[in-house]
Amino acid sequence: MSVIEELAGELTRLPGIGPKTAYRLVYHLMKGPPDDARRLARAIDRVVERVRACGRCGNFTEQALCEVCANPRRDASVVCVVEEATDVAAVERTGGYGGLYHVLGGRLSPLDGVGPEQLNIESLLERIRSASGAVREVIVATSASVEGEATAIYLEKRIRPLGPRVTRLARGIPVGSELEYVDGSTIAEALAGRREM
Amino acid sequence: MSVIEELAGELTRLPGIGPKTAYRLVYHLMKGPPDDARRLARAIDRVVERVRACGRCGNFTEQALCEVCANPRRDASVVCVVEEATDVAAVERTGGYGGLYHVLGGRLSPLDGVGPEQLNIESLLERIRSASGAVREVIVATSASVEGEATAIYLEKRIRPLGPRVTRLARGIPVGSELEYVDGSTIAEALAGRREM
Repeated sequence: MSVIEELAGELTRLPGIGPKTAYRLVYHLMKGPPDDARRLARAIDRVVERVRACGRCGNFTEQALCEVCANPRRDASVVCVVEEATDVAAVERTGGYGGLYHVLGGRLSPLDGVGPEQLNIESLLERIRSASGAVREVIVATSASVEGEATAIYLEKRIRPLGPRVTRLARGIPVGSELEYVDGSTIAEALAGRREM
Repeated sequence: MSVIEELAGELTRLPGIGPKTAYRLVYHLMKGPPDDARRLARAIDRVVERVRACGRCGNFTEQALCEVCANPRRDASVVCVVEEATDVAAVERTGGYGGLYHVLGGRLSPLDGVGPEQLNIESLLERIRSASGAVREVIVATSASVEGEATAIYLEKRIRPLGPRVTRLARGIPVGSELEYVDGSTIAEALAGRREM
């Protein structure tokens, strides 16, 4: 196998990159200045070396605590529980959330061997307990899939006895969608959750 | 700038990768086994170190001569002239061409400062001359753009006096296209080049 095929093979392991795109990327790297390609390789190495999970919430960070946890202006009374660190970035991009996070590292999926022990659930409960009442709300922001739902229900059962309100993201019509193209179950949820204007 | 932003920045320099895709790739690399990411970085390094231009045709290779030039079963009487080494791969994938190649390294584009001296044209003429008549046909496969056309016309003028036939790729309706969606100039070319059934 040539080094070109080898690199194309590695690239197709990435999400959304098929063989055609992989070869286009390889050729781009070969045509450009060698230093550009080397800089990309070094950047990958640095991310692997330096990025780790935040010691408190599991978000990606280069420090012991992530930017959110280390920020004293964040509201420590609200914790948003997400499946992956990528979800933290998605919520942060909205600019509309001022609380903290907790990254589960996945969702309950018994068929794939993912039970509560495989997720960062105990550390979440311990965070709530050791805050002795300072965590007043836990927003469960797991995905809107069957496993995400099951994870949310499981979390609710475990968290509520510890004191905080447990809430979840609203279901409804995505902004900008035409009703015609929204699936039936989303419309049903939107109807059930309708609000006074 | 964090190492995450740095890597995302490097990735957005690649064709077809915007900021959103870049972050998705970065997160994928961070979530997966570190060895996967390191293998990708090493594959990039190896391509940069080992891949170079074929000494005869300019195609990508890890050897002094590329696979096509080194293959004694290829028909040395036909040379297909392409703009980029990626075009060699595109023609090779068809499996329908048995001749050799010559990579120009671009196309004539005076506005961008690309004249004949910036392209591998002298080496092509020298190849034809030194073959003393063994090159019987040169297929000009430059792109179907204004610059590609201008390059083809220039090449034709320089090559014909040396002896070989100079041909170019047929213009017409792409396979699988519906006439309705084909642009007018392509239909005009297809009409002009119509063939007996």
